[in-house]
Amino acid sequence: MRAAGLSHVRLAEFAWARLEPAQNCFEWAWLDSVIGILAGEGLKVIVCTPTAAPPAWLVRAAPEILPIGEDGHRREFGSRRHYCPTQPAFREHTRRIVAAMATRYGRHPAVVGWQIDNELGDHNTGRCYCAACVTAFRQWLARNYGTLAAVNDAWGTEFWSQGYTDWSQIDAPNRTVAGPNPSHVLDYYRFSSDSYASYLQLQLDLLRQWAPGQAATTNFILSPDPGLDYHQLARPLDFVSWDSYPTGYAEVQAKALYGPDVQRPRLAFDLGDPYVTGFAHDLARGLKGSQPFWILEQQCGHINWGVYNPGVRAGAVRLWTWHAVAAGAEAVFYFNWRATLFAQEQYHSGLLNHDASPAVGYADLLAMQPERDLMAQVAAEPVQAHVGLLLDYADLWALQLQPHHRDFGYLRHLFVFYRALRRFGLTVDLVTPAADLSRYPLVIGPTLFLVSEPLAQSLTSYVQAGGHLLCGVRSGFKTPSNRVTAQPLPGLLRPLISATIAQWHALPPGVDYPLASSIPGLDGAASLWAEALTPWPLAAGQPAATVLAEYAGGPFAGQAAWVETQHGLGQASYLGWYPTESQAAALVLHLAARAGLSVPGEMPPGLILAQRGRFSILLNFTDETLNTQFANCTHTVAARDVSVLSDMGRIVGS
Amino acid sequence: MRAAGLSHVRLAEFAWARLEPAQNCFEWAWLDSVIGILAGEGLKVIVCTPTAAPPAWLVRAAPEILPIGEDGHRREFGSRRHYCPTQPAFREHTRRIVAAMATRYGRHPAVVGWQIDNELGDHNTGRCYCAACVTAFRQWLARNYGTLAAVNDAWGTEFWSQGYTDWSQIDAPNRTVAGPNPSHVLDYYRFSSDSYASYLQLQLDLLRQWAPGQAATTNFILSPDPGLDYHQLARPLDFVSWDSYPTGYAEVQAKALYGPDVQRPRLAFDLGDPYVTGFAHDLARGLKGSQPFWILEQQCGHINWGVYNPGVRAGAVRLWTWHAVAAGAEAVFYFNWRATLFAQEQYHSGLLNHDASPAVGYADLLAMQPERDLMAQVAAEPVQAHVGLLLDYADLWALQLQPHHRDFGYLRHLFVFYRALRRFGLTVDLVTPAADLSRYPLVIGPTLFLVSEPLAQSLTSYVQAGGHLLCGVRSGFKTPSNRVTAQPLPGLLRPLISATIAQWHALPPGVDYPLASSIPGLDGAASLWAEALTPWPLAAGQPAATVLAEYAGGPFAGQAAWVETQHGLGQASYLGWYPTESQAAALVLHLAARAGLSVPGEMPPGLILAQRGRFSILLNFTDETLNTQFANCTHTVAARDVSVLSDMGRIVGS
Amino acid sequence: MRAAGLSHVRLAEFAWARLEPAQNCFEWAWLDSVIGILAGEGLKVIVCTPTAAPPAWLVRAAPEILPIGEDGHRREFGSRRHYCPTQPAFREHTRRIVAAMATRYGRHPAVVGWQIDNELGDHNTGRCYCAACVTAFRQWLARNYGTLAAVNDAWGTEFWSQGYTDWSQIDAPNRTVAGPNPSHVLDYYRFSSDSYASYLQLQLDLLRQWAPGQAATTNFILSPDPGLDYHQLARPLDFVSWDSYPTGYAEVQAKALYGPDVQRPRLAFDLGDPYVTGFAHDLARGLKGSQPFWILEQQCGHINWGVYNPGVRAGAVRLWTWHAVAAGAEAVFYFNWRATLFAQEQYHSGLLNHDASPAVGYADLLAMQPERDLMAQVAAEPVQAHVGLLLDYADLWALQLQPHHRDFGYLRHLFVFYRALRRFGLTVDLVTPAADLSRYPLVIGPTLFLVSEPLAQSLTSYVQAGGHLLCGVRSGFKTPSNRVTAQPLPGLLRPLISATIAQWHALPPGVDYPLASSIPGLDGAASLWAEALTPWPLAAGQPAATVLAEYAGGPFAGQAAWVETQHGLGQASYLGWYPTESQAAALVLHLAARAGLSVPGEMPPGLILAQRGRFSILLNFTDETLNTQFANCTHTVAARDVSVLSDMGRIVGS
Repeated sequence: MRAAGLSHVRLAEFAWARLEPAQNCFEWAWLDSVIGILAGEGLKVIVCTPTAAPPAWLVRAAPEILPIGEDGHRREFGSRRHYCPTQPAFREHTRRIVAAMATRYGRHPAVVGWQIDNELGDHNTGRCYCAACVTAFRQWLARNYGTLAAVNDAWGTEFWSQGYTDWSQIDAPNRTVAGPNPSHVLDYYRFSSDSYASYLQLQLDLLRQWAPGQAATTNFILSPDPGLDYHQLARPLDFVSWDSYPTGYAEVQAKALYGPDVQRPRLAFDLGDPYVTGFAHDLARGLKGSQPFWILEQQCGHINWGVYNPGVRAGAVRLWTWHAVAAGAEAVFYFNWRATLFAQEQYHSGLLNHDASPAVGYADLLAMQPERDLMAQVAAEPVQAHVGLLLDYADLWALQLQPHHRDFGYLRHLFVFYRALRRFGLTVDLVTPAADLSRYPLVIGPTLFLVSEPLAQSLTSYVQAGGHLLCGVRSGFKTPSNRVTAQPLPGLLRPLISATIAQWHALPPGVDYPLASSIPGLDGAASLWAEALTPWPLAAGQPAATVLAEYAGGPFAGQAAWVETQHGLGQASYLGWYPTESQAAALVLHLAARAGLSVPGEMPPGLILAQRGRFSILLNFTDETLNTQFANCTHTVAARDVSVLSDMGRIVGS
Repeated sequence: MRAAGLSHVRLAEFAWARLEPAQNCFEWAWLDSVIGILAGEGLKVIVCTPTAAPPAWLVRAAPEILPIGEDGHRREFGSRRHYCPTQPAFREHTRRIVAAMATRYGRHPAVVGWQIDNELGDHNTGRCYCAACVTAFRQWLARNYGTLAAVNDAWGTEFWSQGYTDWSQIDAPNRTVAGPNPSHVLDYYRFSSDSYASYLQLQLDLLRQWAPGQAATTNFILSPDPGLDYHQLARPLDFVSWDSYPTGYAEVQAKALYGPDVQRPRLAFDLGDPYVTGFAHDLARGLKGSQPFWILEQQCGHINWGVYNPGVRAGAVRLWTWHAVAAGAEAVFYFNWRATLFAQEQYHSGLLNHDASPAVGYADLLAMQPERDLMAQVAAEPVQAHVGLLLDYADLWALQLQPHHRDFGYLRHLFVFYRALRRFGLTVDLVTPAADLSRYPLVIGPTLFLVSEPLAQSLTSYVQAGGHLLCGVRSGFKTPSNRVTAQPLPGLLRPLISATIAQWHALPPGVDYPLASSIPGLDGAASLWAEALTPWPLAAGQPAATVLAEYAGGPFAGQAAWVETQHGLGQASYLGWYPTESQAAALVLHLAARAGLSVPGEMPPGLILAQRGRFSILLNFTDETLNTQFANCTHTVAARDVSVLSDMGRIVGS
Repeated sequence: MRAAGLSHVRLAEFAWARLEPAQNCFEWAWLDSVIGILAGEGLKVIVCTPTAAPPAWLVRAAPEILPIGEDGHRREFGSRRHYCPTQPAFREHTRRIVAAMATRYGRHPAVVGWQIDNELGDHNTGRCYCAACVTAFRQWLARNYGTLAAVNDAWGTEFWSQGYTDWSQIDAPNRTVAGPNPSHVLDYYRFSSDSYASYLQLQLDLLRQWAPGQAATTNFILSPDPGLDYHQLARPLDFVSWDSYPTGYAEVQAKALYGPDVQRPRLAFDLGDPYVTGFAHDLARGLKGSQPFWILEQQCGHINWGVYNPGVRAGAVRLWTWHAVAAGAEAVFYFNWRATLFAQEQYHSGLLNHDASPAVGYADLLAMQPERDLMAQVAAEPVQAHVGLLLDYADLWALQLQPHHRDFGYLRHLFVFYRALRRFGLTVDLVTPAADLSRYPLVIGPTLFLVSEPLAQSLTSYVQAGGHLLCGVRSGFKTPSNRVTAQPLPGLLRPLISATIAQWHALPPGVDYPLASSIPGLDGAASLWAEALTPWPLAAGQPAATVLAEYAGGPFAGQAAWVETQHGLGQASYLGWYPTESQAAALVLHLAARAGLSVPGEMPPGLILAQRGRFSILLNFTDETLNTQFANCTHTVAARDVSVLSDMGRIVGS
């Protein structure tokens, strides 16, 4: 490991059965020994709590801890994540094992941190439907609403005769004849996320008590929809970390980000999709407000859980590592050291092959040795984002519950703007609308779906203080209870955008409404979703909106499609259609200019510009040499290569 | 509502929890007040029984009323239609609420009628598999068959060792290892439909007792396969009503009507498919034998349960209303008044928007005001159909259970003939073979699958008295028990059609057998299904069949494909292949001429001709101006417009 | 039957309820009578044990015999195969009925043999997940592994904290949160197959005791993956038999054999696919080591369980019969005599139609009468295969559990080689690697996945004694426990092939690595799967490998792709990519030459050459006349026809 340049080792994940082979019988010798050996070699250690894999004896002793799926069926022992975080018995077992580990290693000099559990919510475990969850959900509702009348009102239970007259009548919203009430479901999702948050807090509290000097995190999967509110989960962590599998994300998860008719960039087959990977990096960085993060699992060869699991050639691991560092990573761990000879992940590669010979990722680590100092310099710099792109998990879930148009995905809509911003090299933080937005000259909220009074107020304050905000279609449509606003659309956002939505249409494939605009490059038509705007003033004294685009045909002909309004020192605008990537690019140039942002350059597909402090990093994810104009020079980056530029010129790169 | 020209209001659907918030505690004040206000404004009221949504307290008190799906799993409270109609406990609760409502409003002068329950069978609830159903099914079998030996014989249980030696051995036909016995399944379907019919009758009896002067109906969904026998359900109703959602039907249900390779007409994207909508109108009209019907829910903007849920522009609601009136509607109600702010149907439009402003449908109502008198005149006329097109639910289910060829759909086959007939402006009643057919010069039975002696006899009588009958492929194949006839095919229909089927072939995609015929326009080849006919006389004294088409190649080369025979004053013919729409058009012209029908004209795709008494109505469902020759004139109808013609010339229309 | 030329009748399949209508009450009269009538006409009888269809009374008396699916749900009475073979109660019932039948007919002069049960494993019944199976599985593990520690080690349960500390903790590997442990699953599959084998043995033992002079078999379905180890099941049978449905196999099962991008041969639509049918014949023949087999059900018209169930024209049944006889059949039974009027298989054709008139298959039987003597001569000859193609069910299952690349199918890989071999008219036995391979000049193991020491040794002995062996990709990857070998790849096969795999890549669609080779006709690129080989000697004294092909581009450029090594009197070679059919053809010509095989000829697509003793049979499965060069002559075979050649020239054929 030292020869490969590794400095830290992560271990004990899933080792519960080894550490506690029977209740209260602990076996520490093997782990003491391993940590001792690593420490002797100067390696630092991250210890994982093993709670993602309760042992067989525990499950037999407390079978009620097994989770119940949305289909009402119990999931059984035999893999991992076979627990319900709400179950009191499981929390009790968790306390015992975590306290035991923390007291044993909480002051070990080689142990620098802790990973809690593993990939919370993976394998669709973010929500359980067991009896304990239903009981806890009723209590959660009582805490949050106070009275049953308030629940009935928030959910609109007078519809379809759903009114509850006793708390015990409320179930989990699964297995209904027709679709369940979307307000009921959204609250169940919130409750489920809260249950994981409190389970995470339980472990955090024990670590802070018994391992006070060591940092604590949990390794997120940044699958587009994890079923959990990561903003909430990230809040109490010392830092954010995530598990990065570029080829797997490109194979399995990209469809949640690209619409069915979207032309995808042409990329090298074995490097993943840097827009998808970068979206996850920028989300990880935004979870705690533009902070550095760790990669606790970096793919280092082929994986085993994709569709084709393409082989990975030399250079990929280096490129992924540079991508992570450029995007804000402070540390990158590789998964895993040696390919496992047995069980579920046999086909997953390691830095070493099954026979312990060096694998392709190991060779990349050696190739990166000369670049390690530079990496450290880059990693010491802050990432300063130009743009805040707003993501809210309740919005995501609410839209998932009622997409209305099959192809309208919350994250797809976000991703159109993301790709347009990244095309011009703009650095983007994916952040919650509740974050401090004042650090961003420009903020884009593609679908600010559920809008509360405080949110409307804080967005207004942001704009008045000089911020620039774009809201996209369907913003302001809902209340936080997932009901439609009773006000004219976009509800509470009207005063800010100085316009009202007169009509909106979902557009099936093949139907579009032509647009006209004087904004350079903004042409074509509205497809997928269109809203006709009535710009203010409707009455004297209202701020006046400027029309930036209008419908040039179809039933909305002559009505506004994009409006912009000055408020105090800033501007707010509302876009009335779901843009194509090329339309979004024209929008971005307009918005950046308004916000006083200087656009770094225009990157061809597959070439990624990441800026971190005084460094600019260009990464080429294609099989061809690519060029770009950037900072008054033409830069050429070889296929699969990286170029690191600083104010003193090119440092790394062909 | 009055301003919009509305005269009737439908209410209290699903309001059980509001009317009876605890068992036997009724709250009438709010409903008394609403009806009073409406009555004060001169509006008439349809009251709905709320049984499609039993309240939470009721479900907790009698959880056995929850339905069990074909998968054996219980469906839970939380949406609607969460009941089994067979459950004695639910029938008891039903009696109480319906009797209470009927006694309260049964003589109210503003209440003119009742809607029982809502969309019976929707959300796949037509069949329940609970223990009460299984018990009732055994009793149903005992009533219908008398002895277990008769059941064993009818189902052919000697196959696969299925013989029953005790009634208690008979289960519902679900969750079997391989497919269940199709005779067993068909009887379970019949039993299920009977259970709904008796549940409907229970409510009808109470209404007739306590609300004797008020009409009673139930609002059908005319989804292609509702899982219930609508002929049976419609029989005791005062009139038929249904819920018409043209864009939803075009998106979700049209695939049951169009085959996978069928070229669909090019239509305006937001108007639905008038062939699909019209098929439902013509089915509704035929359910009680060519009687007028009501639309209890007419789409009045976008819906929320489709795939893309396209926005709807001005004019659509007017066109749909005219289509309904022209097809036989006596009244059209719109769903709903104001878009709901909460719960499952938030994304469904109303005549008013969520913020109570007028929506696109409201504007259409205003635009229709000048046409209201004419509409009333049209609605006062009878619809006189040229053609009876035969639909039998047992045939539909039996073919669904054994399609043999994946793409052979009973309703698709029907729909080919339907479109060909409507292309020439012929008015079609979709009727049961048990209906009085003597009113139709021409009758087409695309798949008369299960044929009893009485049916064969009544069809023969119809022909002998001067009727013209076409039978399509697979007719006469089965007995009413869903066994194959032991006679040469087409079984009991042979004497009527004077031919025997020598061989039949299902044809996979890409395979067809060429045809030859002297009938004008009849060319091409047989695809999907082909039968080789041996025309009679086989022996002296049999009536002789005329061959109208024969196979010109393939393994049936030289054998007859279509035969026609004179019987008494009429003619019967048998078509030996599944025709394309263009072949069906040639057939229709031949058959119409034989039946002495004068074909009104030929309509281009998307232009619908409907005739009601002295009025002819042309409706254009495309985005282009369309012309047709009709009654010796060329008629031009603007895009999305309607033209109403009478013997005195054009009344409405551009 | 005699008129049609039939000599044997198979009966009593599924007749349990008729034979034993209540427990221990037997009714023999009807069967005595039927057998008597047949015997009187000189027909011989195969009696079937009826255990595939336990009667209703039995299931009510012992409901625990119903099988539990992988989803944990019980399958119910109402079709067939509704039993778990492990259940003690079902074995007890089986003993009673089989003993009763065997004692009654075991010495009947007309009864020549027995079919046990029917199509074991059909309808996905090969594996049950009931409590009795779980208990028996634990016992099976204890018998096979001795200790729990050995199980933990074999399965690698230290992964994901899966270690067992008590036998009772071990479940069936279903309903887990993520995928179950593949070693656990493979052992469950083996256990399930063992359970069926012991159930089959139970019946065999009774038949051998009570019907000692009569042969016993069971009719296999040769679906590509039956879920049972047919090599194991076939071992104790007197001879192998199977049920041949060419159009059904072509419609439903061919997708398991052809990859998604493979160009399929153009064939007559109603004759099935002779490569798919032939693959099954050659598997049946190989099950007991190149022995003749019986067809107990030969399709004789259309079937009812396919997708389109195409009609069948005259000549098809003759062609299928000749194909079976040419491939090694000793007897061909047709299913069924008369099309059934009732129950699940109503739409299945018979030799007689539903109305008892002769059907298309009957006519073919008459047409075959003049050829019966010749058929008997052919059937008396042995089939002598040129090539052994290795199939192992544990390999198949293990690869099915971890395909790694979605399109990599074990049988598809096998089938590429099969088609290439058959293209040149080479006769192929599909055999287990444990068979005596010395009879084959050439052996191909496309994916020798799980390799034990004894297997590596026996393959080495085969080669050293003069055999020629080709191993394909992924060979030697696993141990028999379904763990990855800890040795360099291909593990235990390295000494035999004299090469090591340096790297391997799964290749997604559209990605390929160019190849270079001097082997005639071997060109193009590696797709789907590629392995880079390092040929030996790596050290002095190792046998040297010859490189036959290498990578000419991509990340493996310059590395070996195919190597060949001399060992003793024979040669072993390893192919480092998944070949296309055309590449496989070039390989086959090279390998045949090396093995001293004279290639009979090259057959155009759809023309099948089968050789049996002194006869060569050419069968044309297309709609066109086809020619081939064979034995120094051009042979022409008419569409849908057969040509039988002997050393004395053409005997049958146009």
